Amino acid sequence: MKIIVDVMGGDNAPLELVKGACRAYEDTGVDLLLVGNKEEIERVAEQEKLDISHFEILDAKETVEMTDDPLMVVRKKTESSMIKGLYALAHGEGDAFVSTGNTGALFTSATLVVRRIKGVKRAGIGTVLPLKNPVLLLDSGANVVVEPEYLETFAVMGSIYMKSIFGIENPRVGLLNNGSEECKGTELQIAAYELLSKNENINFVGNIEGNSLSADTCDVIVTDGFTGNILIKTIEGMGKLLLGSLKDVFMANAKTKISSLLVKKQLGAMKKKFDSSEYGGAPFLGLRKPVIKAHGNSKAKAFASAIKQAVGFAEVGLAEKTVDGIAQLKAGGEKDADAE
Amino acid sequence: MKIIVDVMGGDNAPLELVKGACRAYEDTGVDLLLVGNKEEIERVAEQEKLDISHFEILDAKETVEMTDDPLMVVRKKTESSMIKGLYALAHGEGDAFVSTGNTGALFTSATLVVRRIKGVKRAGIGTVLPLKNPVLLLDSGANVVVEPEYLETFAVMGSIYMKSIFGIENPRVGLLNNGSEECKGTELQIAAYELLSKNENINFVGNIEGNSLSADTCDVIVTDGFTGNILIKTIEGMGKLLLGSLKDVFMANAKTKISSLLVKKQLGAMKKKFDSSEYGGAPFLGLRKPVIKAHGNSKAKAFASAIKQAVGFAEVGLAEKTVDGIAQLKAGGEKDADAE
Repeated sequence: MKIIVDVMGGDNAPLELVKGACRAYEDTGVDLLLVGNKEEIERVAEQEKLDISHFEILDAKETVEMTDDPLMVVRKKTESSMIKGLYALAHGEGDAFVSTGNTGALFTSATLVVRRIKGVKRAGIGTVLPLKNPVLLLDSGANVVVEPEYLETFAVMGSIYMKSIFGIENPRVGLLNNGSEECKGTELQIAAYELLSKNENINFVGNIEGNSLSADTCDVIVTDGFTGNILIKTIEGMGKLLLGSLKDVFMANAKTKISSLLVKKQLGAMKKKFDSSEYGGAPFLGLRKPVIKAHGNSKAKAFASAIKQAVGFAEVGLAEKTVDGIAQLKAGGEKDADAE
Repeated sequence: MKIIVDVMGGDNAPLELVKGACRAYEDTGVDLLLVGNKEEIERVAEQEKLDISHFEILDAKETVEMTDDPLMVVRKKTESSMIKGLYALAHGEGDAFVSTGNTGALFTSATLVVRRIKGVKRAGIGTVLPLKNPVLLLDSGANVVVEPEYLETFAVMGSIYMKSIFGIENPRVGLLNNGSEECKGTELQIAAYELLSKNENINFVGNIEGNSLSADTCDVIVTDGFTGNILIKTIEGMGKLLLGSLKDVFMANAKTKISSLLVKKQLGAMKKKFDSSEYGGAPFLGLRKPVIKAHGNSKAKAFASAIKQAVGFAEVGLAEKTVDGIAQLKAGGEKDADAE
């Protein structure tokens, strides 16, 4: 088992990412291939007395910036840590790839370099939403416009993910919609509803509305990347707004400050429960090898978690299980022209 | 000034709605025309000793049910309180109409009976979101699929609303989108961005993402009714989830229960701030006369608030101001073929 790690992306590269790699190695003993500017990696390791002697390093002189255009990156930034890392993954030099870099560039490059699983017309970005129960959202932003068939594929891939990674036996799949009746939504949702209902490999629980999503009604929620992005960011914004208001409540006066001390432990647990970073990075689903996007603002601890998450993906054989799941879906009859 | 009031819709008709009408009369002295089953209205009034002697009553034997199909209602349920009330409004027997009935039926019927303002291709349902600042969402569910031009009209109507009703001098208008750059979104958002940027009558502040919406970035947010519905229900669901978790925090043990007593007042104020019913019913914008949808679960107090809101709409001349605003927009050059 070897994880390929891009240590040049995000806000805290390379120091915090190298630190995170060291921590993941200490905790799991997994082999790591660090991709990045070798001189810089060695310089920060020496400066901070980090032991990087167990790691292979793949030197990459370029770095992908947050403002870089995705297609430009894969075509022109071939010496970047992101692209070199993805090629290393595609060529079998490791079992999974983790990066904190530019999401759009990573997604486009991963699709072109690592390639999609046969039968998957679009890969998706999964995000585990910190609600009453963990809910995997697919797609959370990669595919702004989708076809009904993509949503069916997302449902299959999401079910495999929640079963393999979260141990949920028969994951409930919901279709994000503006009402519970099957006639609700745009043409997309109406057609997707029909496909999902007919598919025996999916435990489809019907349309799920924004207010019931948070009430333990499903384990996987499928939608287009536009709506998914609005959903995920609204959840994030509301969490921040309400927790911020709560802070004002407790800081109001001496009495309320005492009150805050009495519930400190429980409040901490509550905040942790609604912290999306607790579930690690965002998996790209539908690719031939696992690729994980860690938060751009990851520090050592969060980055180490994302690396461990990648180990988990590779260990349970998520990509292989997805290959089987999609093959089963396609065996249902649909012809598949563009898999390659 | 006379407000037409449908006392037969929603969960608590007619008793709570008649009570609400009495309360609104006591507070404002406004003339009211109650529409509903006359016998039933008189029976509950006598039973509860409510003084309804100041009210006119328009007898309506039918009631619109929550499961009724919108088009069927306007065509067949012509003896219902909803349709009779809307015709009374259209014929000038009152200045505004308030109903707790089936939203879809009310919206479709209001559009057909009261009719749209010249130049408005689609009316919209506005909802004031209880965020850091009040934000008017348009459309919150009436038009699942929209054209870029509708969003421009929503922006104009929403600005007039927030200026007239909330006293905001130059309301900031945001376009709900999956990123801040102008190239973001589907074809709809890209085209709408261009229209909104070019319009000198709109204080367009650009694309607003789900997480920045809650941080006092705009006063009006425009989107299609599908996304608007997801947004509003997600906000509602997250509020419920987080306030529910907070309850668990305080109920954990004796110490935390004491803590809750110390912040009771501040917590109450916080809950009130995030309670959407504090802003009254949902205004239908773009119609020739004010129509307000009160919550289906409204009790007397909430229904009285919605009636007072209707008084406010009529007093500031919201519909007339919208006529002027749309005329100005159209004078900008766009031809208008289907206004009637």
